[in-house]
Amino acid sequence: MTRAELVREIKAKKSFLCVGLDTDIDKIPQHLLDEEDPIFSFNKAIIKATEDLCVAYKPNIAFYESYGAKGWVSLQRTWEALPKNCFSIADAKRGDIGNTSTRYAHAFFNQAVSGLGFDSITIAPYMGADSVIPFLDMPEKWAIVLALTSNVGSADFQNLTDSAGEQLFETVLKKVASWGRVDNTMFVVGATRGEALLQVRKHVPDHFLLVPGVGAQGGSLQDVCRYGMNSDCGLLVNSTRGIIYASNGRDFAERARAEALILQQEMAAELERFGIV
Amino acid sequence: MTRAELVREIKAKKSFLCVGLDTDIDKIPQHLLDEEDPIFSFNKAIIKATEDLCVAYKPNIAFYESYGAKGWVSLQRTWEALPKNCFSIADAKRGDIGNTSTRYAHAFFNQAVSGLGFDSITIAPYMGADSVIPFLDMPEKWAIVLALTSNVGSADFQNLTDSAGEQLFETVLKKVASWGRVDNTMFVVGATRGEALLQVRKHVPDHFLLVPGVGAQGGSLQDVCRYGMNSDCGLLVNSTRGIIYASNGRDFAERARAEALILQQEMAAELERFGIV
Repeated sequence: MTRAELVREIKAKKSFLCVGLDTDIDKIPQHLLDEEDPIFSFNKAIIKATEDLCVAYKPNIAFYESYGAKGWVSLQRTWEALPKNCFSIADAKRGDIGNTSTRYAHAFFNQAVSGLGFDSITIAPYMGADSVIPFLDMPEKWAIVLALTSNVGSADFQNLTDSAGEQLFETVLKKVASWGRVDNTMFVVGATRGEALLQVRKHVPDHFLLVPGVGAQGGSLQDVCRYGMNSDCGLLVNSTRGIIYASNGRDFAERARAEALILQQEMAAELERFGIV
Repeated sequence: MTRAELVREIKAKKSFLCVGLDTDIDKIPQHLLDEEDPIFSFNKAIIKATEDLCVAYKPNIAFYESYGAKGWVSLQRTWEALPKNCFSIADAKRGDIGNTSTRYAHAFFNQAVSGLGFDSITIAPYMGADSVIPFLDMPEKWAIVLALTSNVGSADFQNLTDSAGEQLFETVLKKVASWGRVDNTMFVVGATRGEALLQVRKHVPDHFLLVPGVGAQGGSLQDVCRYGMNSDCGLLVNSTRGIIYASNGRDFAERARAEALILQQEMAAELERFGIV
């Protein structure tokens, strides 16, 4: 998906919501366990219930991989069920030396080879340029690189300050931005640190940011918009547990829709406040 | 596998060789392409030809994942074919927030769930403590954390120096060592920088190091031993292309064995020189 197409979807739906598909067999409604592929059945229902309210879906690959080859089949079916007007994110946190990163790019981007044709993949930057650049080589595909994450451990390395006073996540933003473009690179920036977005925007004013941590993890949507929104919106805000596990009864899809709708309406208000729609 | 068992194997085989299984359908001998699962057939033959000469195998997960569910089946078969007296490494470079890292641990360690029961997995440290610790929770399982890698891009972030004069890879070594123990944590340190091993050993004298980059990538085995060996050997030196692609004819397994034997004999000499065997 191109950046122009993504921005068009955001304006049309008045939403920059990304729904996380961290689908856990132990958390989905009991009645689905009788289905042939409960994980896919759950995802399909969640997608159907939310597709007009969100612009992106983000399966967390660990949740599929932990079931081995069977999980990979559920992932492939899920990818096939994603509406083509939604931006798809393989939340895989991959990254390796060049020839191996090229393999991972094929795994998630090249449907003819792997069965999966995601628009984007999340990337860990620790191994540097040759671990990131192979993900930037395919047209309309995106690398979403970890910069400042929302977990407790993020401070262990991401906030280390170099001799010039720059934090590691800032160096990551600047270097990675120089390897790609604003139409093939995004960054992960946690919502739990609203004001940190200000600092992020100093380095990457025009890039899209994938923002986890709103809701269950305590981040505020208003803060994220105040400090992070740009003239193209520039944000994909992810919510997972608050939506997909809103209920574990037979009404799970309905309740997921209700939660997604609340977020979409808050997002519409923000997009209007910033004059984007 | 416990540390004591690994050290025992190293002494018995006079080898600290790890064979990388980066099995690429475009590089394996043509005649195998008629088999039902050419990747597995290739791996099985390589394992049979080398298992008495090496102490570890390291499938590079990207090479399997790029074929989707089918690749995952080849990986599972390969894992099942690994001799139980060899240390198995899932070279996956995973790492995510805590609950997701737990999922990845199950994907690679918990055979009952995923079909895979590797002894260890390679981990990217960028997300900090909660991304690493879930891999340290299972008995006899190991996290092998990226510290100083052998690729060109490694200098982009790993060599950044903080205000106290410490490089990022040193901070990673120190912090990660404090989260785990010498019997459940190893580090990846590239062989292309022999003397860098000296600096690594200042921080982690007793840990095992997984060392890629000997051979095709230009690292010297003698330098690695001079600067990196400890009283338990403390090294697993990986070779991939030089062994598994020594020939792409019908003699591929035989030629792989010949190359592995050369390395094993060099390793035996080093183990003797250091008084370990």
